[in-house]
Amino acid sequence: MPQKDFVNIALIGAGFMGRTHSNAWGQVSRFFKTPIKPVMHTAFALPEENPQAMGKWGWQNFSTDWQKTVASPDIDLVDIVTPNFMHAPPAKAAIAAGKNVACEKPIAGTLTEARDMADAAKKARVKSFVWYNYRRCPAVAMAHKLVKQGAVGDIRHVRAFYLQDWADDSIPLVWRFDKKLAGSGAHGDLNAHIVDMTRFVTGQEITTIVGAIAETFVKERTLMAGSAAGGIAAGIKSGSGKGKVTVDDTVLFLARFSGGAVASFEAARQATGNQNRNGFEINGTKGSLKFNFEDMNRLSFYDATRPREVQGWTEIMCTHGGSHPYVDAWWPDAHIIGYEHAFTNMAFDILKVLAGQDPTVPIPDFADAYQTQRVLEAVLLSADKHEPVKLADVK
Amino acid sequence: MPQKDFVNIALIGAGFMGRTHSNAWGQVSRFFKTPIKPVMHTAFALPEENPQAMGKWGWQNFSTDWQKTVASPDIDLVDIVTPNFMHAPPAKAAIAAGKNVACEKPIAGTLTEARDMADAAKKARVKSFVWYNYRRCPAVAMAHKLVKQGAVGDIRHVRAFYLQDWADDSIPLVWRFDKKLAGSGAHGDLNAHIVDMTRFVTGQEITTIVGAIAETFVKERTLMAGSAAGGIAAGIKSGSGKGKVTVDDTVLFLARFSGGAVASFEAARQATGNQNRNGFEINGTKGSLKFNFEDMNRLSFYDATRPREVQGWTEIMCTHGGSHPYVDAWWPDAHIIGYEHAFTNMAFDILKVLAGQDPTVPIPDFADAYQTQRVLEAVLLSADKHEPVKLADVK
Amino acid sequence: MPQKDFVNIALIGAGFMGRTHSNAWGQVSRFFKTPIKPVMHTAFALPEENPQAMGKWGWQNFSTDWQKTVASPDIDLVDIVTPNFMHAPPAKAAIAAGKNVACEKPIAGTLTEARDMADAAKKARVKSFVWYNYRRCPAVAMAHKLVKQGAVGDIRHVRAFYLQDWADDSIPLVWRFDKKLAGSGAHGDLNAHIVDMTRFVTGQEITTIVGAIAETFVKERTLMAGSAAGGIAAGIKSGSGKGKVTVDDTVLFLARFSGGAVASFEAARQATGNQNRNGFEINGTKGSLKFNFEDMNRLSFYDATRPREVQGWTEIMCTHGGSHPYVDAWWPDAHIIGYEHAFTNMAFDILKVLAGQDPTVPIPDFADAYQTQRVLEAVLLSADKHEPVKLADVK
Amino acid sequence: MPQKDFVNIALIGAGFMGRTHSNAWGQVSRFFKTPIKPVMHTAFALPEENPQAMGKWGWQNFSTDWQKTVASPDIDLVDIVTPNFMHAPPAKAAIAAGKNVACEKPIAGTLTEARDMADAAKKARVKSFVWYNYRRCPAVAMAHKLVKQGAVGDIRHVRAFYLQDWADDSIPLVWRFDKKLAGSGAHGDLNAHIVDMTRFVTGQEITTIVGAIAETFVKERTLMAGSAAGGIAAGIKSGSGKGKVTVDDTVLFLARFSGGAVASFEAARQATGNQNRNGFEINGTKGSLKFNFEDMNRLSFYDATRPREVQGWTEIMCTHGGSHPYVDAWWPDAHIIGYEHAFTNMAFDILKVLAGQDPTVPIPDFADAYQTQRVLEAVLLSADKHEPVKLADVK
Repeated sequence: MPQKDFVNIALIGAGFMGRTHSNAWGQVSRFFKTPIKPVMHTAFALPEENPQAMGKWGWQNFSTDWQKTVASPDIDLVDIVTPNFMHAPPAKAAIAAGKNVACEKPIAGTLTEARDMADAAKKARVKSFVWYNYRRCPAVAMAHKLVKQGAVGDIRHVRAFYLQDWADDSIPLVWRFDKKLAGSGAHGDLNAHIVDMTRFVTGQEITTIVGAIAETFVKERTLMAGSAAGGIAAGIKSGSGKGKVTVDDTVLFLARFSGGAVASFEAARQATGNQNRNGFEINGTKGSLKFNFEDMNRLSFYDATRPREVQGWTEIMCTHGGSHPYVDAWWPDAHIIGYEHAFTNMAFDILKVLAGQDPTVPIPDFADAYQTQRVLEAVLLSADKHEPVKLADVK
Repeated sequence: MPQKDFVNIALIGAGFMGRTHSNAWGQVSRFFKTPIKPVMHTAFALPEENPQAMGKWGWQNFSTDWQKTVASPDIDLVDIVTPNFMHAPPAKAAIAAGKNVACEKPIAGTLTEARDMADAAKKARVKSFVWYNYRRCPAVAMAHKLVKQGAVGDIRHVRAFYLQDWADDSIPLVWRFDKKLAGSGAHGDLNAHIVDMTRFVTGQEITTIVGAIAETFVKERTLMAGSAAGGIAAGIKSGSGKGKVTVDDTVLFLARFSGGAVASFEAARQATGNQNRNGFEINGTKGSLKFNFEDMNRLSFYDATRPREVQGWTEIMCTHGGSHPYVDAWWPDAHIIGYEHAFTNMAFDILKVLAGQDPTVPIPDFADAYQTQRVLEAVLLSADKHEPVKLADVK
Repeated sequence: MPQKDFVNIALIGAGFMGRTHSNAWGQVSRFFKTPIKPVMHTAFALPEENPQAMGKWGWQNFSTDWQKTVASPDIDLVDIVTPNFMHAPPAKAAIAAGKNVACEKPIAGTLTEARDMADAAKKARVKSFVWYNYRRCPAVAMAHKLVKQGAVGDIRHVRAFYLQDWADDSIPLVWRFDKKLAGSGAHGDLNAHIVDMTRFVTGQEITTIVGAIAETFVKERTLMAGSAAGGIAAGIKSGSGKGKVTVDDTVLFLARFSGGAVASFEAARQATGNQNRNGFEINGTKGSLKFNFEDMNRLSFYDATRPREVQGWTEIMCTHGGSHPYVDAWWPDAHIIGYEHAFTNMAFDILKVLAGQDPTVPIPDFADAYQTQRVLEAVLLSADKHEPVKLADVK
Repeated sequence: MPQKDFVNIALIGAGFMGRTHSNAWGQVSRFFKTPIKPVMHTAFALPEENPQAMGKWGWQNFSTDWQKTVASPDIDLVDIVTPNFMHAPPAKAAIAAGKNVACEKPIAGTLTEARDMADAAKKARVKSFVWYNYRRCPAVAMAHKLVKQGAVGDIRHVRAFYLQDWADDSIPLVWRFDKKLAGSGAHGDLNAHIVDMTRFVTGQEITTIVGAIAETFVKERTLMAGSAAGGIAAGIKSGSGKGKVTVDDTVLFLARFSGGAVASFEAARQATGNQNRNGFEINGTKGSLKFNFEDMNRLSFYDATRPREVQGWTEIMCTHGGSHPYVDAWWPDAHIIGYEHAFTNMAFDILKVLAGQDPTVPIPDFADAYQTQRVLEAVLLSADKHEPVKLADVK
């Protein structure tokens, strides 16, 4: 196939992530010099979601039949933003049709689906991508580069956390509390990100889950009054009284990395005062790094090779064009960027890969995301069986 | 004139701010429910700036004749982003043609022009706007609301600062160092913002400039090698050797506010380590507020009416939909926003005003921006004459 | 026994903690109005440690025979600051002689000793104290009070950490790396503090250790060249070449508290960039608290009952006399205090208890410190056996 | 005179500073290896202040006759902590008697007295010291060293601030509000410190006061009910109703330093939320420094000579023995020190100077403190006359 200078994209799904991806595909060629042009060809949504409403983002065509859309000869890249349990069907159909596929995280609702997707993508030799967007915060990408350059030496400690507090006892039984619809609770939603992020930054794999806790603090929640809403919300039970929460509120675990580091992870939805504290600390023999998404433009770096009298935590404002990844495309120094920019940065890297170029920093494909999924599965096994689990035993 | 449900916009100018405004006009109706639809009708740029390049932002027509554009019957709102010395001509022409006008800050290159523009807008009864964008950071708008609610009591101290560090001695003689092109240095560029911001947040006027320093540390800079570039850069002298810097590097001043507060202001371009530290501190009898743009999603509030044992500086993450201004349009809690969002928020408020609605928080028109301009002028007088200057004497 | 208005103190031990306690006993009645007067009666040290050197702190007599000292009819309170493995002998001898006893933390080198000491103190009805000094940082004491008042509601998450970085690979085989002399590594030294501190602040007990890691990164260290030094250092092997490290470098564990909270703990000596980061985070249904000793004068409090628009982390400078515990004795607001003040505050509370008064906040006796010791033991069991351990099974 | 190995000290004054100095003289030889021994020989206080109460600090003799005390042949060093208006008489008497003299800051109540004291000390060739204690915070001393090493290059900006908030409208007319007793308000109390501190850290002199504001927000305060208290409080008017405040609440000024830097200073007592925010920011061509006493163990350093991608503000925890000034005497890393330690550090340096050694960092004598006093005087002149004042004209 001769290299085209554009890529026709189909977006499958119209929820919160539909909005985020649409913005990214729209903004990317306004800010970046993209090697190929992204064409916002077709947006799929359920009829009750009103696909045409996606038009404001720049989508040119609308569909209520995803099977047809993902197989259409017009489409080059299928971008999937449906709920987790609905990732695998369109992904596998798209791969079967020879399309490149991008998929929201976590890659799938089950480990089996994840493995199937990774195998299918490999076999079909299509390009695949999973939107672990936080890799593309300039500060996180910079952390990856510093570790790779040896700036922290041998890593001995990893601490990762993704703490939110939106799920207090007053929140009703929305779809995120239903295992059938959401797959899991804080674990799949939040730990997925920090497992990917620490694998990315350290360049290492998790080898053992030493211990884990999965806890649901609020075991019942008020049913939603509403009539059937569209989209994923349609699946949620409504009525009066209370219904059972079937996912976790928090999952903590201890782990070991392949390079010898010990690690702790925590995902939580009731960590009052932490609205979106998603980050890590890494301590090595030569230095350390800290990142927290609530301060996403900054990276903290401790360089233990500096003269002792001036050693300390350096807050790097990762907004300097020419020095920090992705920033050339954006604004002058310390004119900070926000949440959606990481998605636009990712859209840029997807386009680079599709054009045969290297991404700015490594981008997770289905095979890579399947590794993250194995970790998530191992954690649940450990929590369930109250014993350590080796990653080698989870496939 | 019957209320139309759209507004045809002409953008006059294509530099850095052309990009920022274009983004705002494009994004505003993707994120906000705008009361009227912004139509990106025509973009004007100099021929050597290639107006068609603005097409990627969504502009539908292109012009190299601003006089014709601002007078076109198709246009409802003229948005001016030319260099300061070129604000007044298109603004006055647009007003003369009965158009509503938005203009980048500071309103004009001279106080006389500013007064003329304010008078013309008033007389023609058109709507006018000046893009003091920082008012529309949610944290700054929140500060305004808290002061208005009485949360800080009587204000006694104001400290305002806008510190940058891009202008070290190695930077060549770019247009920003030429008084003819730039109007002034740090003063017009940076103090303009913090004078507006403190007037906005306190709800008070500056009445006296008590003392001022205007200093140029680097008096000569290397001439730029280049041949004539397009746009404003075309005006800058090039060649070999050094040329004279004709603007200030830093301007500091002490002032008094109408409500009795004392105040200090500082704008600087060589404040090493401060890339874009634009903010204020306000101390009142009941509480205090602090804001720094480098951490733009947060507002610090000290509530001195709380029980003493729990008093302290509270870092409010101003990202909660339903509580903090503009945030409903954006992302979930602590999914932070960045520099350009304040412009999009402003575009939303301009559309509200054009639709006859109140803006989210007060928006500066030409008359308001003229008040800021008077302060800037009074500061230069004070620095020049080495004596206090009363605002009442500067018109 | 009629209440005396003084207490004659014997200090057993002369190392780093001898200095710290001596300072506390000397300073306490200079700053506090003590209900009874502390008399620095006798200091015991090994002959090679030169007991007379303790004279500068105000000790009046010197001894090289601890058995005689702890049994002397002149002594009312025996304060033990010897290495952990040498806590039990003088403590039990002092109790046998009917003395009140204070002891450095952790209470003992082994759980059996700890239980014996607690039993002995109970049976003899003497007063006992363990110097978990961090309870007496005003900010930590304030946290305890806020939790007790219900300010955080039901606690769901506890994170505790004590991270240091002094033990890099270049450090030779000092006594702290020898299990015989030090008892344990980071675990007994650092986790002891945060187990006590979280028990104190939450008012709850740890019920289960869910999983644990104990790791020694640097398994061999250079032998010390020196001839036999005095004190504890005398026990350490010296010579050329390398010797084996027999204690842990880091211990992490997950736990559950009696009130339903999940918790993570980490002690580390190679967490580069963290010199003495000793603290906790507690998230409850109504609010949250954060403390970090490196910023020991401050307590962070998130009050989720405040109006949403002003919710945020409040940094309470715990230095206000009349509001914050212990501060009346010290300096004006924000004239901060340091490490040794917590010891002086503790000396004050010991004197209060000896005078029959309530301490400012609860003070750990041997029975209480034995509970902390059970947790430490359970963690090591869990790390060793790779399985959860219930506290009820560790006695 | 043969060098003695001790120095007999007389303390003149018994208020808050009497306590602080007493603690310093007592602690210094417990923590430092002092070259000569400080003997706390005699404490003077007014009879109603009960000099014997000073005994708890270690003073050996007590006096109610300062003239006799300062002239006593037993005394080697006279340390003056009386109110400002009472500095000159004992200082001059002590100098006349050939004693070395230490004096609290500011050196005197008037510029004339300051000059007289400096002249007298010079003529008599005695050693003199003024307790500008903040120079001896390790972080401030470290800043001085870094500037001296050239780490910030040429200094272009100085910002200094000393903000407190204790003086709200509810505070009655205590002696600090009476010009006769206190000399001045925030200016002499607070600006004195930051003028000294910036002169010390920059190594430069202030040459011009460009503009100044002195403001009293609360012009009348409730009279104190009390009967005549002892000490300085005895001078204050009491009764019912209100009395006039005769000192400033806040003083701000702009200045120029001898090396070309521009500067702003602010002292305030009603800066709500700032309990003791005493510090500076210094921006140079190669780097910048920030210090704030509320976080006194840390120094922020921006090193603009580092690779751009890792540039940022480094928070140096100035607690490392062997690297940071004075710390060898205190505790391990990040076991922070507090307010009174700077006094103890100063006592150590006074003893070094008396023993003929260099102090750790330069220590202000009367001649040096007179320079600070000239600046303070120039500021008041500028505020009063509404015009710039050159330091060369103030003597």
